[in-house]
This record gives sequence, C-alpha cells and structure tokens, in this order.
Amino acid sequence: MSVRQSYDHELEALRQDLLTMGNFVGEAIQQAVQSLIKQDVELANQVIAGDDVVDSMEIDIEDKCMVLIATQQPLARDLRIIGAAMKISTDLERMGDHAYDIANVALRLADKPPLKEFIVIPRMAELAQQMVNDALDAYVRLDTLLAEQVCEADDEVDRLYDHVFRELLTYMIEDPRNISQATQLIFVARYLERIADHATNICEWTIFLVTGQRMRKKSI
Amino acid sequence: MSVRQSYDHELEALRQDLLTMGNFVGEAIQQAVQSLIKQDVELANQVIAGDDVVDSMEIDIEDKCMVLIATQQPLARDLRIIGAAMKISTDLERMGDHAYDIANVALRLADKPPLKEFIVIPRMAELAQQMVNDALDAYVRLDTLLAEQVCEADDEVDRLYDHVFRELLTYMIEDPRNISQATQLIFVARYLERIADHATNICEWTIFLVTGQRMRKKSI
Repeated sequence: MSVRQSYDHELEALRQDLLTMGNFVGEAIQQAVQSLIKQDVELANQVIAGDDVVDSMEIDIEDKCMVLIATQQPLARDLRIIGAAMKISTDLERMGDHAYDIANVALRLADKPPLKEFIVIPRMAELAQQMVNDALDAYVRLDTLLAEQVCEADDEVDRLYDHVFRELLTYMIEDPRNISQATQLIFVARYLERIADHATNICEWTIFLVTGQRMRKKSI
Repeated sequence: MSVRQSYDHELEALRQDLLTMGNFVGEAIQQAVQSLIKQDVELANQVIAGDDVVDSMEIDIEDKCMVLIATQQPLARDLRIIGAAMKISTDLERMGDHAYDIANVALRLADKPPLKEFIVIPRMAELAQQMVNDALDAYVRLDTLLAEQVCEADDEVDRLYDHVFRELLTYMIEDPRNISQATQLIFVARYLERIADHATNICEWTIFLVTGQRMRKKSI
C-alpha cells in the first residue's frame, strides 16, 4: 500500500468512526424518548450507561485525528476534513449528553401518571434522529444539498418545540400539580431542539469543507 | 527569529486569542444577567449583537489552529495544545450562546414586573464568570491544581441551580400567573449551570495536556 493509500484508508476509518458514533447517538436519542414514553426504567438506565460509550468514542476519534495530523501532516482539504471531524465529534458527544439528560427525566417521571399522551415529543425525536443520520451522510459524501436540507428540517423542529412549550405551559396553568412534571417535559423538548441544532452544526462544517464558505452559526 | 521561536510566538498568540475570547464571553455572561436584573433592553441587545463577535473569534481560532498544524507540523504536546485549543474554542462559543440565550430572556421579561428580587442568579453568574477566567488561566499556565479547583467550584453552581429551580417551582405553584416568567428564569439558571459545565470541560483538557490522563466527562 502506498503512503497515500494508507492515508486514505485511515481517513476512511475516521469517517466510519463518526458514522458509528452518530448511529449510536441517534439510537440513544430514540431509546431515551421511548424510555420516557413507555416509563421503561431499564431502557432509561441503558441509555445512561451508554453515555460512557459515547464519551469513549469521542476520545477515540480525537486521538485518531491527532495521530493522523502527527503522522500524515495533512494539508488543505484533508486537514479541514480532520479538523471538522474533531468538531463534529464534539457535537455528537453533546447530543449523546442530551439523550442522557432525557433518560434521566424518564427515570424521574417513571412512577408518575403521564400528563398526557405523547405525540409531538416522539415526532421531534424521530426528526432529530433523521437529522443526525442525514448530517453524517452529508459529511461523509460531502453532499452540500443534503446538508442544506438538514438545516431546513431544523425549522420544523423549532416549530414543534414552540408548540410543545406552549402546550405544556397551559397544562401548568390549568393545574399546579402538573407544574413539576411539565417543567421536566419542557426540558426534554428543549434537549431535542438542541440536538437538532447540533445536527445543523455538522452540516455547516460540511458546507465549509466543500465550498470554503462559513455559515452564520446558530446559537445553541 | 528561529523557526522554533516563531512557532512559540504563534502558540503564544493562540493562547492570547483564547484568553481574549474567554474574557469577552465572561463579560457577556455578566452583562446578560445584569440586563435581566436591571431590565436593561439596550444592554441585552448589546449582548445579542456580541454573539457574532464570539462566533468570529471561534472561527479565527480554528483557522489559526489549522494554519499552525499545516505550517509547523507539531508533534506530541504541541499538537495536544493546538487540539485542545480547537475544543476549548467550541466550549467558549457555547458559553457565548448561553449568554445570548439569557439576553433573549431579558428582552422577553423586560416589561414584566419582576417575580422577586434576584439573589441566587447573580451569584451563579459571578461564579460562572470566575470559573471561565480561572479555567483559561489554568490552561494557559498548565496549572492542574487551579483546574481541579474550578471543577470543585462546579459543585457549588450545581447546588445553586437546584436551589433556584426548587424556589421557582414554588412560585409557579403559588400563582399560575408566575408560570411563564418562572419557566424563563429556570432556563436562565440552567444556562448558567451549563456555562459552568463548559468551564470544567476546559479544565479537563488542561489536566489531559499536563498529565495525559483523560477525566470522565461531565454530561452537559
């Protein structure tokens, strides 16, 4: 194998690691919301335990990036791809943290009668997971069109967040006994909204890689 | 100037940029909380406008890191210092986002009679700003003792967050008219708590730089 081939091989391994981490985090998001809806303590604990795995994945990716930089001394786009990988792993790790946060809410609410049927929150989780997957696909394939689509999907998540937020406020106003529980659910909606923002960050890195254009960052 | 001297000079410039960014973000946190307390719309708008500056600072630091890597091909600890700078700039940018979030709450509540006198939230802001400054000092001086102290201060912020959270819940339960406002203030307390978590992230990077030991990440 030539030096360049070996290098391409390592870059490809890095991409695969990011995909694996992204899939793991996407699953964790879904499972966390499922554990909340089904009041499934075991599943919530599984998500919480999985956070260590996510943290290790981030460290592993960071280390690989450092080794690649040290041994291959990459330039131009290769260097940007590696720099982006370091930043993207941070976004994925934060998403994993939010899945962990949601699982903790699930534990807290596991023995309380549900406030209402969950409709919008699972929809938000589904959209968020899809955005994570698409964002990583766009990064791996350097597909700016898909990256832009993900950024657009974020508007839908923001809309759903506003909807949930307002609805939960009315529950609190109707009956003060709902307040503690509704506050926790507002946090869950907020975590999902932030997960979607992190997915758009990943897309902005992809657009930067391909076009050299920096996009205005969304405040997270 | 020798190559090594010029390189040391650039590393020093990178450290200075991180300090400048950290000071700016620390100020923004304080100003955001002041704008909330004093219902000062102008100050809130100033913090909101400052978010673009923070974003530019992050991009500038990222670019400098990339250039340093490309031109100096650093190894071992130098490479870790630059890698850490990339990660730390992300933490600072997220803190800046939270200052922006707090300023937005300030705008939303600017024309509402205050729920109560603010005591704990300003204390949280003060502690958070101190943690940011100390975390960056620790990074620049590679001072693991100070880094550990910052991590300990985080426990105090967590304790204050719990205090504010519980107190605001009681306000909501007492009078449903408080709910919307109290929910916003819970968000503010949460943002401050997360800012402190980001400061501990910076310290964990410093400890890693010096000792090579990775610490268990705090879930943010």
